[in-house]
Amino acid sequence: MYSSSLTTKLNIMYPIIQAGMAGGITTPELVSAVSNAGGLGSIGAGYMTPENLRTSIQRTKERTNKPFAVNLFVPNEVSASEQTIKKAAEQLQPFYESLGVHLDELPTTFQQPFEEQVTVILDEQVPIVSFTFGIPPQETINKLKKEGILLIGTATTVDEAIAQEDVGIDAVVAQGSEAGGHRGTFSSPFEQALIGTMSLVPQVVDHVSIPVIAAGGMMDARGIMAARALGAQAAQLGTAFLTCLESGTKSVYQEAILTSSETDTTITRVFSGKPARGLANTFIRDMQKNKTEVAPYPIQNTLTNKMRREASKQNNMELMSLWAGQGTRMSKKGTVATFIQDVVEQYEQLAEKNSF
Amino acid sequence: MYSSSLTTKLNIMYPIIQAGMAGGITTPELVSAVSNAGGLGSIGAGYMTPENLRTSIQRTKERTNKPFAVNLFVPNEVSASEQTIKKAAEQLQPFYESLGVHLDELPTTFQQPFEEQVTVILDEQVPIVSFTFGIPPQETINKLKKEGILLIGTATTVDEAIAQEDVGIDAVVAQGSEAGGHRGTFSSPFEQALIGTMSLVPQVVDHVSIPVIAAGGMMDARGIMAARALGAQAAQLGTAFLTCLESGTKSVYQEAILTSSETDTTITRVFSGKPARGLANTFIRDMQKNKTEVAPYPIQNTLTNKMRREASKQNNMELMSLWAGQGTRMSKKGTVATFIQDVVEQYEQLAEKNSF
Repeated sequence: MYSSSLTTKLNIMYPIIQAGMAGGITTPELVSAVSNAGGLGSIGAGYMTPENLRTSIQRTKERTNKPFAVNLFVPNEVSASEQTIKKAAEQLQPFYESLGVHLDELPTTFQQPFEEQVTVILDEQVPIVSFTFGIPPQETINKLKKEGILLIGTATTVDEAIAQEDVGIDAVVAQGSEAGGHRGTFSSPFEQALIGTMSLVPQVVDHVSIPVIAAGGMMDARGIMAARALGAQAAQLGTAFLTCLESGTKSVYQEAILTSSETDTTITRVFSGKPARGLANTFIRDMQKNKTEVAPYPIQNTLTNKMRREASKQNNMELMSLWAGQGTRMSKKGTVATFIQDVVEQYEQLAEKNSF
Repeated sequence: MYSSSLTTKLNIMYPIIQAGMAGGITTPELVSAVSNAGGLGSIGAGYMTPENLRTSIQRTKERTNKPFAVNLFVPNEVSASEQTIKKAAEQLQPFYESLGVHLDELPTTFQQPFEEQVTVILDEQVPIVSFTFGIPPQETINKLKKEGILLIGTATTVDEAIAQEDVGIDAVVAQGSEAGGHRGTFSSPFEQALIGTMSLVPQVVDHVSIPVIAAGGMMDARGIMAARALGAQAAQLGTAFLTCLESGTKSVYQEAILTSSETDTTITRVFSGKPARGLANTFIRDMQKNKTEVAPYPIQNTLTNKMRREASKQNNMELMSLWAGQGTRMSKKGTVATFIQDVVEQYEQLAEKNSF
C-alpha cells in the first residue's frame, strides 16, 4: 500500500485510521491491534472521564509501542431550561420502564471535562489527538502543538476544513454523509452538510493545503484506493472495525451490522440531541413517529445514557444506539490483523489489476 | 484512460457518460460533442414528445457518427383526485402571478407516450437506451434487445440493481446521493435510498454481474478514477456538463452553479412531485416554509411546467429548477472537447503520480 506525507508524519505503515468511536467500542485491544497491524488506532474518549481515559491509554500502551490517537469531543455549549430537560426525561420514561428501570435523578453535568482530558493526554504523551464537533480553543491547540502532538480535525464542509487549517490543525478528516455515528458538523445546519464522500473529499482537497483524510462509506481496499484517487492521504474507517473481534461492540450489535443492508441506516437526533447515523430500530421509529421533542446535545445524550446501557446489558437492540455507516453489506467478522492484512492484499491486487 | 468491457460494448473511447438530463439541457450540440470527444452523449428525452425526440436524434446524427444514447423516463402510475390537482395548482398561482402569467387550464396529460418514444428509438436505430424511474415492461425490453440495442438501467440501492439485472438490462447506473436532478429510486422510500456513491458502488458491484456505472458527485478525473477503484466500469457525469458551452443550460443557471458551494443544494419534491437535488432558491424555500402540499409526480411537474419555462425566459433563477449535484465547487465553464481533453490529461497525470 502507499505511503504519504501524512503516513510519514503519523509514523504508520498503512494509510488506515480507525475512527475514534465513543461508547465502549475502542477497547485497548482494538486500538492496539490496529496500531500493531500498521494502521492508526484511536481511543474514542468523547464520553470518558479523565481517569478512564488515563487507564485506557495506559492499557493500550501495554499492548503496543506503535503510535495511536485519542479522539476528543470539543465541548458544545449546553443550554436548555430545566423544563425542557424534565419534559425530555419524562418522554423517555416508557422506554426506561420497558427495560424495568427508571431514570431517577435528572443529571446536572452533561460533558466530560475537556481540559482535564487534554491534561491526561499531555501527561501520557499521546502523539496524536483528533477532534470532532468543532475546533478546540486556540490555547489548547497551542499547548498540544508545543509538545509536538499532531492534531487532526473533523470537517463536513469545505468551510469547516478551512477553519481547521486556519487555527493550525495539522490534518483534517473530511467526513462524508455515508459515515456512521455522529456528524462532526459545527458550522452549518447538519442537513446542508450531508455531502457525499465522493464529492466532499476533492472539494476539501482543493481548498486546504493540510493533508485530508477521507471518511464515510469506505469498508475495504476499494474505498481506500478511491479515497487516494480523490486526493486524500489516508482513509478513516469506523464501521469496518465495529465487527472486529477486538472491539467492544456487543454481539447483537455486530450481528445487526453483519445482516443489514445499505438502506437500513438513518440519521437521527433522538439518542443524543446531535445528528448521527445508525441502524433504524424501535427507539428511533417511536420517537420519530410520536414527534417527541428531543433535548439539545449533550443533554439528550445524558438522558438516554442509562437506557442505552441497560438495553445493551439486556441485549435489547431496539433501545441501543447502533451507529453504522452506509457500507454495512461489506462488513466482515474477524480479527483486526486479518482485516488489515486482507485490505492490504486486496489493495495490491487491485493496483495490479486496474490499469488506471 | 482505461477501457473496460463496457466501453467496448458501448464502442466509446473513454469511460465517460454524459447523463441524459431532461428539460432542454441535452441539445444535439451537447450530445454530439460528448460522443465526438470519445465519451457517450445522451439525449435526455424524459419530457420530449415523440416528434421532438425524433428531431433531436436526427439533429444529433447530423453532428456525429459516433454512438450516443437516449434516456427515457419509465412511466409512473398517475393518481390524484381532481381536488388534489386543483389545490396544488391554486397554491402555485402566487408564483405564476409574480411572473405575470397564469396557470389557466388544468392539464390532463402528464407523461410523454413511452411506447411511442420507444418506437422512435427503434425507427432511428439508436444503439443505446438508458432508463430512470423504474424498469420498463418486459415486452419493451425484449423488443429493444432484439434489435441489438444496449440497455442501461438506473438504481439507487442494491436491490434495485439486482432487479434490473434480473429482467435483462445490460448495465446499471448506481446513482449515489450526491447526484443532481431526479432520484432514480423506484422501490424504496427515497430517504432510505440516499446512499453515498462511495458506499453504493462497491455494494452494487458485489451483488450484480452486469457492468456498473458510477453516478453522483464526480466532476473530474479524480472522481472517475475513484469510481474505477470502487469497481465501476464507467462514470456518468451530469453537473459537469451543465456548464459546457454546448449545453442548453441558461446562463443564469450556469452562473449559479459556477458560484455555488457544496452546501447549496437540497433534495426537494416541490418542482415535480419526485425528489430531486438542486440549488435551493425562493420557490423551494417558500414551498417548504409554507408546508405547501405537492401533487404527486408527474402531476406536480406538469403544473409547474409553465412557471419554470416563464421564469427561465425572464432569467428568474428563483422560480427555475436548478438541478445540480454536490460537486459544484469543481464546475468549470468551457467546451465539451476541452472538458474531456482536460479530464483525460488529468487522469493520465494522476495515474502516473499516484503509486497505488
